[in-house]
Amino acid sequence: MNGTFTTISVVETMEKLALSYNKLMEKAKAIPILESTESIIHWDMETKMPPKGIKLRSEQLAMLSRIEHKTITDSEIGALIERIENHKDYDTLDQIQKRNLYLMRKRYNEETKLPEELVVETARQQAITVDTWKKAKASKDFPMFKPELEKLINLKKKAADILMKVKHTATLYDALIDIYEPKMTAEAITRIFNELKKGLVSVIEKCQAAKKQPDASILQRNVPINIQRRISNSLARFIEYDVESEKAGGRIDETEHPFTTGYYDDVRITTHYYEKKFASSLFSVLHEGGHAIYDQILNPKWIYQPVGESCSLGFHESQSRFVENIVGRSREFWVYYLPKLKELTGNIFSDVDVDTIVFAVNQVKPSKIRIEADEVTYSLHVIIRFEIERDLMADKIEIAELPEVWNQKYEDYLGVDIQNDSEGVMQDTHWASGYYGYFPTYALGNIYSGQILAQIRKDIPNWKKQITKGNFHNIKQWLTKNVYRHANLYDPADLIEKIAGEHINARHFLEYLNEKYSRLYGF
Amino acid sequence: MNGTFTTISVVETMEKLALSYNKLMEKAKAIPILESTESIIHWDMETKMPPKGIKLRSEQLAMLSRIEHKTITDSEIGALIERIENHKDYDTLDQIQKRNLYLMRKRYNEETKLPEELVVETARQQAITVDTWKKAKASKDFPMFKPELEKLINLKKKAADILMKVKHTATLYDALIDIYEPKMTAEAITRIFNELKKGLVSVIEKCQAAKKQPDASILQRNVPINIQRRISNSLARFIEYDVESEKAGGRIDETEHPFTTGYYDDVRITTHYYEKKFASSLFSVLHEGGHAIYDQILNPKWIYQPVGESCSLGFHESQSRFVENIVGRSREFWVYYLPKLKELTGNIFSDVDVDTIVFAVNQVKPSKIRIEADEVTYSLHVIIRFEIERDLMADKIEIAELPEVWNQKYEDYLGVDIQNDSEGVMQDTHWASGYYGYFPTYALGNIYSGQILAQIRKDIPNWKKQITKGNFHNIKQWLTKNVYRHANLYDPADLIEKIAGEHINARHFLEYLNEKYSRLYGF
Repeated sequence: MNGTFTTISVVETMEKLALSYNKLMEKAKAIPILESTESIIHWDMETKMPPKGIKLRSEQLAMLSRIEHKTITDSEIGALIERIENHKDYDTLDQIQKRNLYLMRKRYNEETKLPEELVVETARQQAITVDTWKKAKASKDFPMFKPELEKLINLKKKAADILMKVKHTATLYDALIDIYEPKMTAEAITRIFNELKKGLVSVIEKCQAAKKQPDASILQRNVPINIQRRISNSLARFIEYDVESEKAGGRIDETEHPFTTGYYDDVRITTHYYEKKFASSLFSVLHEGGHAIYDQILNPKWIYQPVGESCSLGFHESQSRFVENIVGRSREFWVYYLPKLKELTGNIFSDVDVDTIVFAVNQVKPSKIRIEADEVTYSLHVIIRFEIERDLMADKIEIAELPEVWNQKYEDYLGVDIQNDSEGVMQDTHWASGYYGYFPTYALGNIYSGQILAQIRKDIPNWKKQITKGNFHNIKQWLTKNVYRHANLYDPADLIEKIAGEHINARHFLEYLNEKYSRLYGF
Repeated sequence: MNGTFTTISVVETMEKLALSYNKLMEKAKAIPILESTESIIHWDMETKMPPKGIKLRSEQLAMLSRIEHKTITDSEIGALIERIENHKDYDTLDQIQKRNLYLMRKRYNEETKLPEELVVETARQQAITVDTWKKAKASKDFPMFKPELEKLINLKKKAADILMKVKHTATLYDALIDIYEPKMTAEAITRIFNELKKGLVSVIEKCQAAKKQPDASILQRNVPINIQRRISNSLARFIEYDVESEKAGGRIDETEHPFTTGYYDDVRITTHYYEKKFASSLFSVLHEGGHAIYDQILNPKWIYQPVGESCSLGFHESQSRFVENIVGRSREFWVYYLPKLKELTGNIFSDVDVDTIVFAVNQVKPSKIRIEADEVTYSLHVIIRFEIERDLMADKIEIAELPEVWNQKYEDYLGVDIQNDSEGVMQDTHWASGYYGYFPTYALGNIYSGQILAQIRKDIPNWKKQITKGNFHNIKQWLTKNVYRHANLYDPADLIEKIAGEHINARHFLEYLNEKYSRLYGF
């Protein structure tokens, strides 16, 4: 602060507010730079690191988290926030500045309240629990997993208890949900998911009862990996995710579990290739590509500011699901893409017509594994996890009961019979990794995507025709204007209202499913 | 420090020394972890980063340097060092502990004395100078390069002036040399290089006068890139640089300019592939591989400690040159490797015999470009750069005179006629990147490698026979014991004496060249 100010008082204090704000933003800038550094280090670990490097890598990652924590909890940040909040000219800040301040305040409060020992201990326990989970999953041994899971859950509850007080949420679980989907609550999700569940079960029953059934065997035809790589590139071109040119801001690599990571001008996706499951990679690329173009575009004017981040995990998932399912599994997409696919694959699919492949990639079939589930049953897998998490955090379920509860719900909701805990309660890494409150965002994403679709139908009446011509550009423009560009200016509840003119609700998503699957299955 | 100590005084102070020392080492550990993080971020930039990511990447790298600088200049480090140095039980520290303390003191003093503004301004100017260098080189326009080079040199002189006082060196240039080759001086290098130059010129003259001349055209035969990649892997296996197994600690990627980076369990090399220059990659892999196995092995007991780093750039280069030239261009290596090469390349080299290829890869031919120079003329390129740097830093040459001085020296030492500054004074990135005092380490490496060879000859009399059988293992064991394992326990002058029982001198390297080339060229 410049003590020699001699101009009139109003200008002086205005200046001081601007100075404090700019200073805060300068400090805020370090956070995404550090996080994006960590994301490269993490990406490298998953894709390129020589296996022996794992120990050194864990030291590097621990160091980066420590630096991040220190950067965010810097007491000067706290002082700057307070100075701005209490400044008499606070109201002169615009909406974006106020949002930045709000987001910094939220993050600062939460991070400073969590004791460093708890953060470090949780990170340590997570590593152990994941390691045990891998072994237990391999040997189908839940009792081996249980004690380490329990330790982690207790640490998570401790953190949730602290966060609950900072965030003033009604329950522990709400404090965790808020990390991924700000201001969302278990109560609201329960209401929304009940509506969703009813609708999904009805669609599934009709599909199963239908006479007409797809022939999914064409998806098992052998497609060499090098051809699948060319398929990936062609899909990236379709969604204008540049991984090839001299101005490319993306790339596609290979990992067992596909993911997206990065920040604005460097956003990378991964996929996995199986010769006899080419569609697995195809939809992974569309899914991760949907995440990637969201992250790449957002709002570059706000780069390095809190408001320049994405809105929530639910919204992120709405973008990936929109590209993967609403576009990628539509008849219109396959009108465009099947000839491309035939061109790329020689004579592998020369006998296949559009109707056959569209029906095949939309087969509805209750199954045991979430990540292999179809568009309709998928959300049921998520609802099961949500209900269990909610009840676990409220001490209504004990950890020892998890397998039993899991298996019962799979029988009730999906009618499948879980044979062992590896295909059951231990199938996902999330709980071992300490992600509680994360799962529901997968289904919230589906719901948002239905509401977004309803708007696109109004704004671009011929959008389907455009897709048949391989034109995704106008839809992407629409998404840019109506979703991406708002970045983190609004909480998800406000953003969906801004986009759809209504609260979050499953109606549109269910309508979309009913319409699509009644046509496919003829019910 | 624990204020409740109640044990007897000697134990108490002993404890305190150990506590301070351990605390210092805990702080020291952050440095290689940060540096190795930066090395991954840098490697990614060179090998994998989407081009658009460059701006974000420069922010990440700047952030990491700032954090590194802060970490090293932490006043608590200064206080701990002082407490240990002045401790009455200081003498109870062992050699390794004392060396760690010495290295921390050196680094701390140097980094704290450099004002942060100078460090930041230099980093900024370096980026600009490199950028201008690229453009100026492309358009052969030294006057375009000159003003930005001048600004950088002035900043470097400022830094050298500060470092000179901290290090008590005789000249500015010595303070810069010391960064790369601790305690080495321009005076000593001048003496050594004069001896070297004389010897090299004599070998070159004899080679040029010889009737027998190699047929290097076989090195231009077309070798497809995918085969060259297999050649790289086979060479990595030969030097036991694991890039393939589930325990691999290395990998080979592709960049325009080959380099090595990493730390212990994650050390990566790069190479470049040209279809009509397969030997370029072959020797790059051996060269970088020589660097890599040194970095991988060092002394794992000392990982994360200053003493666990490598000794100097000169020693690093001795290891790469040893593998590339003394082993890789030896007749014995080709007795082993030519059949392998034939196996890998189908019928491309079926008509080539060992003598032909050995002579081809050892062609002595004065040229204009350092990185394409042969084993004998290479050091002359380095000597030219050293002499110019030395005189530049002593204000005996002006920047405007650089092209003229350069061209004259190339005519005098190598008998080549430089046509323009892009193939002349602007060929290397070093000066644009702010590396002054770095070049001489390339030739020092050659000299050390000659002295190391002389010792190996004594200790493993049949080492050449082992190479003909593809056995590099025993030599690697010898290098591990006599070079790698000492890591940074000694300054280079002491290490070469420990290894060779004598001061640095060019005699052995010249003897090796004379012996080898007289046999090849028949003089």
